[in-house]
Amino acid sequence: MRNICIYIAYDGTNYVGWQKQPNHETVQELVENALSIVANESVVLLGSGRTDAGVHARKQVANFFLQTSTTPTEAFIRGTNSLLPQDIRVFEAKEVDQDFHVIRHVKSKVYRYFFSYQKVPDVFQARYTWHVFTPFDVTLMEQASKALLGEHDFACFATHGVVTKSTVRTIFEVTFGKTEAGVDYVEFSGSGFLRHMIRSIMGTLMEIGTGKKNPDVFQKILQSQDRSQAGETAPAQGLFLWDVRYEDL
Amino acid sequence: MRNICIYIAYDGTNYVGWQKQPNHETVQELVENALSIVANESVVLLGSGRTDAGVHARKQVANFFLQTSTTPTEAFIRGTNSLLPQDIRVFEAKEVDQDFHVIRHVKSKVYRYFFSYQKVPDVFQARYTWHVFTPFDVTLMEQASKALLGEHDFACFATHGVVTKSTVRTIFEVTFGKTEAGVDYVEFSGSGFLRHMIRSIMGTLMEIGTGKKNPDVFQKILQSQDRSQAGETAPAQGLFLWDVRYEDL
Repeated sequence: MRNICIYIAYDGTNYVGWQKQPNHETVQELVENALSIVANESVVLLGSGRTDAGVHARKQVANFFLQTSTTPTEAFIRGTNSLLPQDIRVFEAKEVDQDFHVIRHVKSKVYRYFFSYQKVPDVFQARYTWHVFTPFDVTLMEQASKALLGEHDFACFATHGVVTKSTVRTIFEVTFGKTEAGVDYVEFSGSGFLRHMIRSIMGTLMEIGTGKKNPDVFQKILQSQDRSQAGETAPAQGLFLWDVRYEDL
Repeated sequence: MRNICIYIAYDGTNYVGWQKQPNHETVQELVENALSIVANESVVLLGSGRTDAGVHARKQVANFFLQTSTTPTEAFIRGTNSLLPQDIRVFEAKEVDQDFHVIRHVKSKVYRYFFSYQKVPDVFQARYTWHVFTPFDVTLMEQASKALLGEHDFACFATHGVVTKSTVRTIFEVTFGKTEAGVDYVEFSGSGFLRHMIRSIMGTLMEIGTGKKNPDVFQKILQSQDRSQAGETAPAQGLFLWDVRYEDL
């Protein structure tokens, strides 16, 4: 049995997300189907985590086991891509240890959220950026974000009704930057993130940046666990799964 | 009568080009329809030039006359955008002299063509870049491009059967650059460009860059006017109408 790890990039605009679901086109299903053809055996693909409808991935990591296939590992790049639409690409494939686990062995996950204020939205950024109509102060957002660092129970930033063993996560770093095109972004790296957690944090950050909320609101929410103090959930198209890091990959 | 000049940006992916034509969605028609609603009178829009199917515009310039409309000029930005799909945006509107002519008064036009070699194409560049599967030498392309500078009869780089008064054009500058994302581009500024001229030059440049053609091929083509020596026409999605410049705008 071979354990194959692949890196996948996708533009999430046209998909209902990563995770397979009936009657909808998902990235997982399209990649799984393509891999199965290239492998000439039925492949089950496990991703490092879900991404929601419209969320993009610069680097999603996934793995699958081959029972009998003799397809060379390298062929899972070009062969798979020839069967995929141009908004999904496998850009790495390598054989890994039998016991490599794409979820359990994650060391850190990195997400970037892109946001921009312009009087008129840039047509070339529209698919990949949250365009806001009110100017914001990035310095305020940056200061406020420091309260998120470290280990916290982030349940208050997750979708209501999420059932997970624990809602405690650690945020290692929050950094702000700007692209060549003048689009702002914030990068979060952490042990893992709950569903809608980054978009909910981002919505709150924006309300701090536009002066609608006090910069100390993160402390208050994390202490009180009162979700009603958080901002609106920011839209999907600004969010990118940027990187998934492992100890020995 | 008011003469209104507007700047328009569009992602050309979903359109058969700028110029109105029956039974197809064009940028000109969509903008004209939106302007007519905002103006509350029928508007005829004249663009600085056509762009072909799939070609983008960072800045297209167009004008229209208002006979009786009292709509404030500023309203042609937000009002028009509220009626347009998100891949077309009017980002400037101003009243200009009665005799301002959007074609005759052009001082220079600037186009950029984006191209990239990667083993696996970047999904986020696919709509806006010519992805080539062979590595190329930009230095060779840059050297060869110098032969294009100045006034020449460019008929050999235009679509066969183009009927225009003159096929003589002047290229003022050809400059190469690289984006933050590592995508190469070449920028052409000139008095004007014939239909398919830049994509035909670009196709030839790429064959020089990949070693299929000799760097002196431009001199030979321009001297002999032998189109068969030129390369394939490069694909539309890498091309952007980047700027249209006027003496007094």
